[in-house]
Order: sequence, then structure tokens, then C-alpha cells
Amino acid sequence: MVPLNFMTTGTADYLVTGNFSKKAAEEAAKFGTARIAASSKDKNFTYIPDVKAIEYDPNASYIHICQNNTIFGTTFVDVPQVEGIPLVADMSSMIFSEPTDVSKYGCIYFGVQKNVAPAGMAVAIIREDLLGKCAKGMTPDKIPTMMNYTTLLNADSMYNTPPCWCIYMTGLVMDYLEQEVGGLEEMKKRNEAKAKILYDYLDGQDFYTNPVEKPYRSRMNVTFTSPTQELDKAFCAKATAEGLLNLKGHRLVGGMRASIYNAMPEAGVRKLVDFMEAFRKENA
Amino acid sequence: MVPLNFMTTGTADYLVTGNFSKKAAEEAAKFGTARIAASSKDKNFTYIPDVKAIEYDPNASYIHICQNNTIFGTTFVDVPQVEGIPLVADMSSMIFSEPTDVSKYGCIYFGVQKNVAPAGMAVAIIREDLLGKCAKGMTPDKIPTMMNYTTLLNADSMYNTPPCWCIYMTGLVMDYLEQEVGGLEEMKKRNEAKAKILYDYLDGQDFYTNPVEKPYRSRMNVTFTSPTQELDKAFCAKATAEGLLNLKGHRLVGGMRASIYNAMPEAGVRKLVDFMEAFRKENA
Repeated sequence: MVPLNFMTTGTADYLVTGNFSKKAAEEAAKFGTARIAASSKDKNFTYIPDVKAIEYDPNASYIHICQNNTIFGTTFVDVPQVEGIPLVADMSSMIFSEPTDVSKYGCIYFGVQKNVAPAGMAVAIIREDLLGKCAKGMTPDKIPTMMNYTTLLNADSMYNTPPCWCIYMTGLVMDYLEQEVGGLEEMKKRNEAKAKILYDYLDGQDFYTNPVEKPYRSRMNVTFTSPTQELDKAFCAKATAEGLLNLKGHRLVGGMRASIYNAMPEAGVRKLVDFMEAFRKENA
Repeated sequence: MVPLNFMTTGTADYLVTGNFSKKAAEEAAKFGTARIAASSKDKNFTYIPDVKAIEYDPNASYIHICQNNTIFGTTFVDVPQVEGIPLVADMSSMIFSEPTDVSKYGCIYFGVQKNVAPAGMAVAIIREDLLGKCAKGMTPDKIPTMMNYTTLLNADSMYNTPPCWCIYMTGLVMDYLEQEVGGLEEMKKRNEAKAKILYDYLDGQDFYTNPVEKPYRSRMNVTFTSPTQELDKAFCAKATAEGLLNLKGHRLVGGMRASIYNAMPEAGVRKLVDFMEAFRKENA
């Protein structure tokens, strides 16, 4: 939907820092030029390029990033800020994990399935002046109706029968974040504390390896490997048997991945670290 | 998605019998010629054109119908069957209300929110030979990835994170239909019995009016009006107070609409008829 609605100059800059930013760029290439302004593929996506050092195309309709990369366990620290070129960010895997300065973005979009609600809904926050346009070479009325942000806006997000359950659950989670947690600053503190436990443990031993450059470590997805693929497999099997689920890394990278989204309590992270240490002692 | 994937000749025949078939035709017109092969607009959509008498375009990529029209309370009895031209049907508001001979269709699609599961998912059943193509003048790789049926098929419907809750609930409802109800023949009998109670009542009095020609009466949505708009309003208010909800007709037609989908028990229909008769006595 981003290129169909926003690629007004026929070109846009994409920062490829993982799987979903790569897919976003491939999709955009259907509707115009998706210029790869920067990529961290040279080091297997273990870092985020310096956003201030990138040469952006002055004619770009927007700059697109995926702010947290679930598979590789990286996150942007700074985000691109270029006068006159709106920033479009996929925040699916870090939205509401910390406060966001929405004024830095032309469009924020996210699937709700990580930090917000059960899978089945996506949300977009769009700067008003970006609406009502379309990719160069077409007219807004040629965008498939349901892929036109203006359709959804004009119909108060009810052009189609909306996913009521997801909306209801989103409301409950927003209430929880405000009233139970006390806001996103507090949520950020909790997430930082959770991530610190895991990264501190990883940094204090040499059985497990986390390949990500330290400044770009994700607070949502912590990736690590044991010395061998066989041990990785044994780790996941044993962890599952002990109730530590979904630790297998994405098939693109292998190893392990601990997704410690908002809903994961600190106790869950501590339990994982205890398990990791026991497994290390047995297998080191 | 239908025109993007199936309008291979650049033109398709649309039967406009209500709001959703009209919207489908408007959408298709973005990607080719959406020819209105027949319409029941001349009598405010109170009937279904004789599908055997329609002159179809031999060059049509497909014939599109909306098989049950929720707003106007009509349903197809026969469906178009033309050698060499696949039939595409939106079955959202009648799927699983009765058995369907899928061999008559090139594509059946439906939103799950009426007879299947909570809102938030659509399902398509597609004849294999129709896949892998696209609207005339484009190539399949230019279809937005998520709107290409082949993407979804190749990824086993998990190209994106799927709406797990809707899928789970669909499974439960399928189990219920098979094991509790005993199959769709039995479901059809129950739905016929429910609709008969309402239509028999409507035919036996002259306070309420159902405008639909009898052969095309929907078994899912029964529309009716009282003598005046004021009484319609009073009817809905009083019904709501007595726990009979959502009886207000769609804003396009006014009056009342009783949606008696699979989930509505016969007792609910009987309660409605009792209420209607009491209201009639008070206001006739």
C-alpha cells in the first residue's frame, strides 16, 4: 500500500536491513523505482547503516525503513530525517515497546500481532498531507479500493466489515499500557531491563554468540547461536520440553531467537537465562 | 482481487442485483471493462434476473454474481452456467447455509463474518486452471503481492501472519456443522424452516410488506416494512428494548431486516414473529 499511495515521484529510497525491508523494496519495485539507498547485507544484516551518512535521493517520494528486524535482532537507534522527504516506517515488531516521536514520520504502519493484539489487523498512522495521492503514472482511482488509505480514512476504517475482535483486543491492550503499566516510558524501562538481562548474560560467557553490533541490538528480538548447529537443535528441543517455547531462529538465519515482546515478563527472561546457563554447563 | 487475477480478456460480465455486486463491478472497472450483463435496479433490486435469458458476452473472462443480497433480501435460485466462461460468486452472506455444487463455479469467495467466524478473514475457492494469470494489459508480477491468489496458495495461506483466531473459530464452526448439525443438507432444512416461519407470517397479514418477488426471497435476510417510516422507527426501538437486536434495515433501503444466519435458532425467529404480531395489533 505504501508505494501505491505515496510513490508520487516514481521513486523512493529503501534501507534494506533485513527480510521485511527487503520484501518492502521488492514490492515497491512493482510500482516505480525502489532505490536501495543503503543495505547491511554485506555483514549479514548484523548492523544498521549510519542513517546520517547515507546519500538519499533528493527526488525520493519517501524513505522506507523497517525499524526493528525480528529475524536478525537489530533495531534503528536514529531514524533518517531528511528535509522534505517523509519517513515511512514498518514498526510491526517494536510499536508500543517505547514512546515514539510521531512527528519524525510521514507514515508509521504495523501489524498488530507482536505488541498489540491477536494477528489479523494492520494499523497505519499517516501525515494528512500525504493522503489523496498515488504512485506516479497512475491516478488515485486506479488504486484497488481497499489498498487506498483514503478509502479507509473516509469510511472511518469501516469500508469493509472490520476485524472486531482485533480492534476490541487492541483497546484492552491500550488500556493496559496506560492504566496498568503507566505509559510507554515505563514500558520502555521494562523492555530495557529485560533485554539487559539477556545481553549481559550473553556478554559474560563465550558458549553462545550474538552476532549483532552492540548499538543496534534489538530490545524485542535477541538472537544467539551455540557452538554448533547440533547443539542449537538440542537447545531448542530441551527448551521446549521445559516450557520455553518458540526459541528456534528463523529459517533464514538458524540458531535461536528469544522474542521478548511487551507481553513477556522479566521472570520469563530470567527463566530463559537460567536454562541457557544450565545448558551451557552441560555442553561446554 | 477477482479482476486483477481473472480478467484475462480485459472484460467480464457483472450481474448487478444489489449493493455488493454493484461495488464489485465498480472495482472491476478499474482494471478493464466491467460489463453490466443484467441488473435488477429497474425494480429496486427486488428480484433476480432470469440467468438463462441473459445475453452474456462470449469474450467475458468470467461472470460475476453476489449470490445472496443482504440489503435487499434476495438470493439466486439458478446461477449462470455458460460453457467456457467461469462463474465467480461472492457467497459471503449464504456460504454454508446449504450445500453448494462447487463444480458450477470458477471461484467462490466469502468473508467469514456471516456464517463462519468472527469478522476479519476472507476465503477463496478457486478452480486451479484459473490461477497464475492476471488482468489483460498487465503481468502477474505487477499484481500487489498480497492480492495475488497464487502468492497465498504457494505460501499455504501464510505469506503474512494469518488471522489465527478467525481460522481457529472457522475450524470449530466446521466441526459444529459436521458433527452437531449433521451436515449442510440438515443446515439447509433448518434455514428453510426458519425462513418459512417469517415469510408465512408476512404473507398472512397486510400490516408489514416484503417487497421481494417470491422465488428470489433470501433465506438469510428477510426484509420488511411497516406502513410508515415512523412505525418502522418505533418497531426497531421497541424490538431493541425487548432484546431483538439489529433489525434496522440498511440505510440504503430503510425499513427492517431480520438476518437469520446459521447461528440464529428457530426460537429466535418465533420470538420475532410473536413480537411482530403484538406490534401489529397495537399499531394497525
